[in-house]
Amino acid sequence: MTEFPQLDGFRGAPGVVRLIGHRGARGVMPENTMEGFAFTLKIGVRAMEFDVVMTRDRIPVITHNHHLLNAATRDAEGNWLTGPEPKVSKLTLAELRQFDVGGLDGRTVYGRRFPDQAFMTGLRIPRLADLLEFARRPEGSGLLLLLEMKSEPAAPGAKGDRLSIVHEVVREVRDAGLQERTILHSFDWSVLEECARVAPEMPRSYLSQLPENTDDPGEDSQKSVAPDFDALGVSIPRAVARAGGRMWCPYFKDVTADLVAEAHGLGLLVAAWTANEPEDIEAMIDAGVDGIITDYPGRAQRILLSRGLRW
Amino acid sequence: MTEFPQLDGFRGAPGVVRLIGHRGARGVMPENTMEGFAFTLKIGVRAMEFDVVMTRDRIPVITHNHHLLNAATRDAEGNWLTGPEPKVSKLTLAELRQFDVGGLDGRTVYGRRFPDQAFMTGLRIPRLADLLEFARRPEGSGLLLLLEMKSEPAAPGAKGDRLSIVHEVVREVRDAGLQERTILHSFDWSVLEECARVAPEMPRSYLSQLPENTDDPGEDSQKSVAPDFDALGVSIPRAVARAGGRMWCPYFKDVTADLVAEAHGLGLLVAAWTANEPEDIEAMIDAGVDGIITDYPGRAQRILLSRGLRW
Repeated sequence: MTEFPQLDGFRGAPGVVRLIGHRGARGVMPENTMEGFAFTLKIGVRAMEFDVVMTRDRIPVITHNHHLLNAATRDAEGNWLTGPEPKVSKLTLAELRQFDVGGLDGRTVYGRRFPDQAFMTGLRIPRLADLLEFARRPEGSGLLLLLEMKSEPAAPGAKGDRLSIVHEVVREVRDAGLQERTILHSFDWSVLEECARVAPEMPRSYLSQLPENTDDPGEDSQKSVAPDFDALGVSIPRAVARAGGRMWCPYFKDVTADLVAEAHGLGLLVAAWTANEPEDIEAMIDAGVDGIITDYPGRAQRILLSRGLRW
Repeated sequence: MTEFPQLDGFRGAPGVVRLIGHRGARGVMPENTMEGFAFTLKIGVRAMEFDVVMTRDRIPVITHNHHLLNAATRDAEGNWLTGPEPKVSKLTLAELRQFDVGGLDGRTVYGRRFPDQAFMTGLRIPRLADLLEFARRPEGSGLLLLLEMKSEPAAPGAKGDRLSIVHEVVREVRDAGLQERTILHSFDWSVLEECARVAPEMPRSYLSQLPENTDDPGEDSQKSVAPDFDALGVSIPRAVARAGGRMWCPYFKDVTADLVAEAHGLGLLVAAWTANEPEDIEAMIDAGVDGIITDYPGRAQRILLSRGLRW
């Protein structure tokens, strides 16, 4: 099997559990912003998990959903968005850059989930290219990208359009020369199949979440594109391995020590998302995962240290 | 009365309560570090409360206590300090710069107080001059300094030596041209008397804490130098006003709405230290303080916003 140097930054070892900043450090800094990524790297957490969506003018940008979240988005006058949430694929980059994504509306369920998140003004949705450029600069050295692609399930033209994000993203990563610091990552396993075809030089990470554990407010747009795990006929780790994946990213509530051991037996790395409460972080350590994706990287550092572990 | 422009950054107004980062943002980042100050300013909290102590070679450095805290200090090999805590005034700057102050020992009471604080490696005790230089650079513009001086109660030669910190600090602030962005601040009101004499161009802030509320673990070395508040014969705000102070900084548990109103009536600003729990931050807002000194500036921002306030 090809050896991918970036996997070393995600691989656990005796005394080591890797930490991966979720959208930067969502518990502390506005999510999916350059400021959040810079903070996370600054505190010594090198790996970032973040989300890429395509604009109308076909520019990959870093934002979580196909629709901007009203709870996290202000207009050019600083007012919270209301009404139907704008769809990223219907807006140009210039239009998206009007919005301020520097804070959460504390009146919303989503805003109340992250009561310590700093409230900043004038923060813009980054292009993928902005993060790639940062990673190439001296202050971004060491940064590793767990790059989640959001396919567009409702796009006209079905599969072709839905997978076109792969081509744009791969081109930008290659242009930046960061293929050895990037893992391609998706809930949509057909997106990852396309990655295998067009970018075999980058390892792939397969996200999963069992339907019975889908209870996070304000979360995913991607459930509908995930495989039907009950219909796979094999365990999820085995399905990931069969698909040629090198990493499995289960929802933390779906993780068991047996599944982690099975994944390791298949040569996979396991990184669980998104563990924030101390007891959940502890449970992931106990289950033997390689990496923990968290909104609170500082807290996770401290829990690891309290158990004599590093990241 | 002289008008001091820096006071505007600490003065409340309808719809505005000021936030002041305590030692930067101790809840999130290692305390009294350049990295913590930069973080706090980055999230839009301009005012920093921090502590200055003199080294053996008479260089003002930013650290909280006369002794380095074992719970927050590692040696050059990365091991936690043990045994008697080193005294800053017995060490040269070069010796102090050997220590790593990038994290807390979670096995200690003090370390457990800040479970989300990032754990960093290679952070050094800053000189006051480092922060002053940062404040003069474009990325430090807007930063305001609530500069606490720690007098040395046990110094030989008594008053003369004990107050010499004032002269060094004032000289450095003047050399940096930051007299209009600095407030001189102390528990030791005789230090502030010396400030009045040698640096009338800078306003003074008077710290207080009632003896019955001194229950923070790992905190102050300065209690012994504070006035005997019971023996003042007047309220603390009145004593601050009589001493020519422009700001009173009471411990948050000592704050009442009546005392704040009295202080305002005397022309004083009131900034309460150190409110971290949401209910304590709320109580300070309710009491009508101008400013809140907090280890969790992001959290405090969010609480203010939830009440329709800015900072």
